[in-house]
Amino acid sequence: MRTAVVIGAGLIGTSIALSLSAKGVTVYLADREPMAVLTAAALGAGQAGEPPGPVDLAILSVPPGEIAPTLKDAQHRNVARAYTDVASVKSQAFEAIEDAGCDTRTYLGGHPMAGGERSGPLAARADLFEGRVWALVPTASTSDDTWHTVRTLVELCGAVPLVMDPHGHDRAVALVSHTPHLVASLMAARLEHAAENEVSMAGQGVRDVTRIAAGDPDLWLDILSANAGTVADILSELAHDLDEAISALRGLTDEDGTRRGKDAQALTGLLTRGCAGHGRIPHKRDALQGSYVTVSVLIGDQPGELARLFTDVGAAGVNIEDVFIDHAPGQVTGLVEMLVTAEAAERLTRTLRMPSTIMAR
Amino acid sequence: MRTAVVIGAGLIGTSIALSLSAKGVTVYLADREPMAVLTAAALGAGQAGEPPGPVDLAILSVPPGEIAPTLKDAQHRNVARAYTDVASVKSQAFEAIEDAGCDTRTYLGGHPMAGGERSGPLAARADLFEGRVWALVPTASTSDDTWHTVRTLVELCGAVPLVMDPHGHDRAVALVSHTPHLVASLMAARLEHAAENEVSMAGQGVRDVTRIAAGDPDLWLDILSANAGTVADILSELAHDLDEAISALRGLTDEDGTRRGKDAQALTGLLTRGCAGHGRIPHKRDALQGSYVTVSVLIGDQPGELARLFTDVGAAGVNIEDVFIDHAPGQVTGLVEMLVTAEAAERLTRTLRMPSTIMAR
Repeated sequence: MRTAVVIGAGLIGTSIALSLSAKGVTVYLADREPMAVLTAAALGAGQAGEPPGPVDLAILSVPPGEIAPTLKDAQHRNVARAYTDVASVKSQAFEAIEDAGCDTRTYLGGHPMAGGERSGPLAARADLFEGRVWALVPTASTSDDTWHTVRTLVELCGAVPLVMDPHGHDRAVALVSHTPHLVASLMAARLEHAAENEVSMAGQGVRDVTRIAAGDPDLWLDILSANAGTVADILSELAHDLDEAISALRGLTDEDGTRRGKDAQALTGLLTRGCAGHGRIPHKRDALQGSYVTVSVLIGDQPGELARLFTDVGAAGVNIEDVFIDHAPGQVTGLVEMLVTAEAAERLTRTLRMPSTIMAR
Repeated sequence: MRTAVVIGAGLIGTSIALSLSAKGVTVYLADREPMAVLTAAALGAGQAGEPPGPVDLAILSVPPGEIAPTLKDAQHRNVARAYTDVASVKSQAFEAIEDAGCDTRTYLGGHPMAGGERSGPLAARADLFEGRVWALVPTASTSDDTWHTVRTLVELCGAVPLVMDPHGHDRAVALVSHTPHLVASLMAARLEHAAENEVSMAGQGVRDVTRIAAGDPDLWLDILSANAGTVADILSELAHDLDEAISALRGLTDEDGTRRGKDAQALTGLLTRGCAGHGRIPHKRDALQGSYVTVSVLIGDQPGELARLFTDVGAAGVNIEDVFIDHAPGQVTGLVEMLVTAEAAERLTRTLRMPSTIMAR
């Protein structure tokens, strides 16, 4: 791939342009907002304006509802030899593309699993897609040449391609992205009118459960609109479990305090299915051999405390698989938890002179 | 406080014993499991066995259902001058204490907000409570001496005391701990039978929402049992929002694709309340002045990569407020996101020679 045009210079479009430009591809930038194009160009993402002749690939980085008309127009003007998009929902766009009479041979749908909480070209990064999954959703007639070009795009961006059909893709993102977002919102909404001392009891658990609820409501309304039916189906299944849980909680103990078997079983069933479902999410450590333990260290808030800790860790020749900092409410200390191999944990605690801080995880 | 007895040498009891022993308090350890006492004593938590005479404080680190009988028995044997417990639910235990005819003047309920996912004396740490909230729940007749002794315990453990009444306490933990746990379980349960390519699309969002669902089902059934009514009430409120969200999703677009105002409004309302609720959770950075930005760096998986990064960070004299590692599925690279002040970000990116990696957060 030598030439490309990015139509829509937002976070994703500009990040793709930065990534391709860094790999030597000549990138043209178009957006209905002139400022977005100028900003992206100033960041080194490519040159402003339409390409002089057909380029190898056009990347449509526009909202789901604009893909069909943008594709129709670009194909009409013969802007590129192949076309892809980056929309997070696919079925509706595919229907619209058919209805608009677009050429489905030169189009291959795409969805890089990156970005989200930030937006705009200023948030763009050339490495945004490094190691991320990039869903590829072909039409029934996507040509080999188009396949080849879009695969090259994914490779140049350092992403991991995953081929899916439109409905399978939309069901997957409903399950791992759209439904979790609404679930986080539902939990977070319960905190809106909580008392001050109630929220001051919040630990890392509720923080994690509600973190993504901070996302932009307008953006999320757009995303949910394009996948509403599928998300509603999954939420209905969840609502069924929820009703069962509420009824089990209400009936859990008799007047005299003894626990009712049936209700206890229903709750244990839900908790157990939750464990199993959580275990389905691939973790980096699943791919690695051996067992891991968490080494915890309490640090202060002075500049360089974390640096000193990791310098010691480096001196011990230990590789940290995962790290997590738990901030204490109203205190200037933080608990750093480092996931390492059992063998490394021994070396690490010896180096850090902290005999009683290893915990199994 | 010079002497104490810890009854129940689990994670919390042993951690308290380790903390008190480190501060020079003579600690006795009791548990119906002799192995737990021996393990805790071997870790340096104190000496096995009952104290020879009344100690200053007895810490009942037993399940909620055993607090009343354990307190009754300990008071009958005149084990201590003051008594506290560490149970995560209070109302039921308070009723049982009244019913059992315990002396409520020498008792002050407690609940340190720490621990949870691990259990047993081997997981104990002297610094488990450093900077954590420790709820103090007095009876109507708790004496000044008892107050003084239990406050000293909280101080020696480095925790932050927060005084609450039993119902207020139980409502707070239902809201920020028990309900979030079930919500995480409900979401995670949807993933149990997901297809392989569906879960491979999982990003950090769904990971965070479901993380605590991995907790032990038996332990959580116990916790939920003691606070079932309050959790059911909050879940019922959540179920109301959920039903509204499902119905709004189903009605969101007309046959011709136009969005219905009423349903869009309902969804935006939920998403906006979620944002507001999320904003109620106190974050460490709320307490600090200035604004923060995230500096992102892509690192490899070789031992010492993180160490080298944090050594460079240390060399720049930069204090990291928060750090987050996003692992890429099937890849050996990780994206490290560091939250720092805007001023420090500038210095940091100069040191790391990475001009285009600053993002606003």
